[in-house]
Amino acid sequence: MKTNPGRYFEDYQLGQVIDHAVPRTVSGGERALYHALYPARHALYSSDQFAQASGLPASPIDDLAAFHVVFGKTVPDVSLNAVANLGYAEGRWLKPVYPGDTLRSSSEVIGLKQNSNGKTGVVYVRTRGLNQRDETVLEYCRWVMVRKGNLDAPAPQTTLPDLKKVLAPEDLVIPEGLDFTNYDFTLSGEPHRWGDYEIGEQIDHVDGVTIEEAEHMMATRLWQNTAKVHFDLTFRPDGRLIYGGHVISMARALSFNGLANAQMIVGLNGGAHANPCFAGNTVKAWSEVLDKAETSAPGVGAIRLRLVATKGGQPFALKGEDGKYGPDVLLDLDYWALMPL
Amino acid sequence: MKTNPGRYFEDYQLGQVIDHAVPRTVSGGERALYHALYPARHALYSSDQFAQASGLPASPIDDLAAFHVVFGKTVPDVSLNAVANLGYAEGRWLKPVYPGDTLRSSSEVIGLKQNSNGKTGVVYVRTRGLNQRDETVLEYCRWVMVRKGNLDAPAPQTTLPDLKKVLAPEDLVIPEGLDFTNYDFTLSGEPHRWGDYEIGEQIDHVDGVTIEEAEHMMATRLWQNTAKVHFDLTFRPDGRLIYGGHVISMARALSFNGLANAQMIVGLNGGAHANPCFAGNTVKAWSEVLDKAETSAPGVGAIRLRLVATKGGQPFALKGEDGKYGPDVLLDLDYWALMPL
Amino acid sequence: MKTNPGRYFEDYQLGQVIDHAVPRTVSGGERALYHALYPARHALYSSDQFAQASGLPASPIDDLAAFHVVFGKTVPDVSLNAVANLGYAEGRWLKPVYPGDTLRSSSEVIGLKQNSNGKTGVVYVRTRGLNQRDETVLEYCRWVMVRKGNLDAPAPQTTLPDLKKVLAPEDLVIPEGLDFTNYDFTLSGEPHRWGDYEIGEQIDHVDGVTIEEAEHMMATRLWQNTAKVHFDLTFRPDGRLIYGGHVISMARALSFNGLANAQMIVGLNGGAHANPCFAGNTVKAWSEVLDKAETSAPGVGAIRLRLVATKGGQPFALKGEDGKYGPDVLLDLDYWALMPL
Repeated sequence: MKTNPGRYFEDYQLGQVIDHAVPRTVSGGERALYHALYPARHALYSSDQFAQASGLPASPIDDLAAFHVVFGKTVPDVSLNAVANLGYAEGRWLKPVYPGDTLRSSSEVIGLKQNSNGKTGVVYVRTRGLNQRDETVLEYCRWVMVRKGNLDAPAPQTTLPDLKKVLAPEDLVIPEGLDFTNYDFTLSGEPHRWGDYEIGEQIDHVDGVTIEEAEHMMATRLWQNTAKVHFDLTFRPDGRLIYGGHVISMARALSFNGLANAQMIVGLNGGAHANPCFAGNTVKAWSEVLDKAETSAPGVGAIRLRLVATKGGQPFALKGEDGKYGPDVLLDLDYWALMPL
Repeated sequence: MKTNPGRYFEDYQLGQVIDHAVPRTVSGGERALYHALYPARHALYSSDQFAQASGLPASPIDDLAAFHVVFGKTVPDVSLNAVANLGYAEGRWLKPVYPGDTLRSSSEVIGLKQNSNGKTGVVYVRTRGLNQRDETVLEYCRWVMVRKGNLDAPAPQTTLPDLKKVLAPEDLVIPEGLDFTNYDFTLSGEPHRWGDYEIGEQIDHVDGVTIEEAEHMMATRLWQNTAKVHFDLTFRPDGRLIYGGHVISMARALSFNGLANAQMIVGLNGGAHANPCFAGNTVKAWSEVLDKAETSAPGVGAIRLRLVATKGGQPFALKGEDGKYGPDVLLDLDYWALMPL
Repeated sequence: MKTNPGRYFEDYQLGQVIDHAVPRTVSGGERALYHALYPARHALYSSDQFAQASGLPASPIDDLAAFHVVFGKTVPDVSLNAVANLGYAEGRWLKPVYPGDTLRSSSEVIGLKQNSNGKTGVVYVRTRGLNQRDETVLEYCRWVMVRKGNLDAPAPQTTLPDLKKVLAPEDLVIPEGLDFTNYDFTLSGEPHRWGDYEIGEQIDHVDGVTIEEAEHMMATRLWQNTAKVHFDLTFRPDGRLIYGGHVISMARALSFNGLANAQMIVGLNGGAHANPCFAGNTVKAWSEVLDKAETSAPGVGAIRLRLVATKGGQPFALKGEDGKYGPDVLLDLDYWALMPL
């Protein structure tokens, strides 16, 4: 058999390292497409001059675009037979990615737990994205529920990784040279600085985008994500499931309106895809300030945000009295970003 | 309130200068997308060698792409609360934009007139697009009808700018070095030179494109235009309104068939978006030669064209006996282009 | 008449050379779009480092993207009045195309045959794609059925070119410097090398993509292909016909799953667009190994493949008992690719 059947639960071993295929050189083409597919407007990722005034050599590729490139490579090895993407933790952006960089991915299996039904199990991986100089540009943990291929395969010893619920401010890596002391709030699009946000503050980002099939498929393909459910309309009776990362990028881009100065994503504390998203859904977003911290970089503060994407309903509604996400919630993401003080 | 509510009529003052946010570095990615979204084929904007043979250092970004980048930045400050985009005048392209250039926009309020209903007013702005060397690459005047936020706000003194109905040939700026004396009519796609067009001549551009939602949204986002009506299907009962600039670019690209040698747009005399455009409309275009002029550049003539986009009906029909645009007319644009003599 | 009516059958003469219009400089933008429109993942076309490890200066533009650019330019001169695209032969890729290269096309009429109905005829052309150094980067023969414009025009003498049914291995041109001796099968995505494929072997590529209108139009426009049938929904009663090249690229990209190491396309022996493709079709693909050959390049073998695209039905079904393609077959392509030994 020449085609890739994907790995089943019994094919993973603790400590196993999987080098993922198809390295990718990114260019201004990926940036232009990212900005055509999402209403992305953070100035640092739009203008070389703005990035240079912030101490970087040029405007990087959007942090989530780098994430998607790294993530996409893991799909054929990690989630082809996945039943569900269960969670993220300890995501850190370590170096900006620039046009001309080549990214590849590598994952280590850090946890395994067979489910009590004997048919599936949870696989925990720590994935690293590396550039052409073998520098790690980002890393994150992810756990997915994977089918067993052979129901008679013995259950592995259960090992659950000790993952941080939230990255501490000192875990965050500030890009070398980043300096917001001469930050231009006119060019960035909003006057609100780090000090203007209060813990507990909630922001309705107001704008909405009704999602089209062609757009989410182009995005997902651009990251070389091959999961059939995103492309083949005959695969699921309820339609073409939209890649969860498409919703993440859409919500993050919508959050520009109110968080234009939350420029760089440096930490991903966790995230849940609360409900599936399909073409025709109108995605809106709201945020909540969860925490704030100072950093060692000049003029740079860190802000911890909850980013929620919805397909309807009222902003700021998240879970019902039963503790479950409401039916209109698509995404609940917890991340750290860098802002000018 | 952290999100941008947009400016209301009473928020504008005569002489006010608004520096718009989010500068943009353009690359080959924007060019590739422009050519994927529109049937754009003018050779000067497609081939570095063709551009160099015409005296330019490289192939610029399409003139309308540069216009859209500059225009898009003005939306959050000028037209977020606009009821209607009323007109354009005195548009001039002053310098070609090349991959690697970074564009930003700045607008000056040059006119104000409250409407007699007391609920809206007309704001006139002159917008400039600047590159990373602070050179103005293009400028244009635009007037929009904007809602009042506070109906009790006093009406400003009415000031109507004195705008030229038509740019004179001597107002046009020819890019430095442009030289069409060695123009290759085989590579450009048509044999028709400046001398082959007669004032009053009408050209049916024949081809049509049925517009898709994904395409106009990708185009509009690429220019970082954030107006809700273009993206949120739940916002208007009659559908997702297509950005007028999408129709302009579509019609201009269709006009290649018959005007392949009207290479560079250098002047925008005026324009009206006669009817709204929605996905599913099949856009066709026709042109009329309004004027011709010689220029000081070697081998270069100027031609003034009316470009009309329609969504049906017969070519060359524009207005009814009542002087109003027919229901199938989408756009009536009046511009100057440069052609080989 | 200023617009291009296209050539009719009687407008072609044997030996006639047509230099096609609108040269095109390609960039990383075209590559990014190609990877957004198709699930293309061959590592040589994705990573500069992978390409350099294979002896090339950088990652080229996908071979089929180069083909589409060259092909698109021929449409206004060759197939605007075509009734059908009948076949391909003797296609050879002679030099990789890199970002920054400028392509143009030129075709020679190598055969003519008026059909017995007197209303149409078959035109055979050999098309060459040239770069900015006037090097031929690829060439292929194509024959199309074209309407007569003037039914009274005399029939030309019938001349049928002597075209090879299949390119011999020694006809194939291996890119200068290509060396697969240090090929990284982990990064490429599959362990299967040239020696692992047997003549007669069939591979079901498993994955499927349901095609959207916006995607095939963007692809077709990117190659500056202007045929009305691909864009104007009002042109044909049965819908917007998808450019055959879109199906070719989709099938080739799907064939990565099972043929990830069939990196470079170097020969096109033939191809038939068996049935029209429309938006909504779910395209799948299967391949059959037709032949294998050694080459003079280090570590490089040649493999001849049949690539079949379908819109349903079972894999490996091609023709019925009547010798005709089944109704679900979209494409039957015969090509040579290069693989690591």
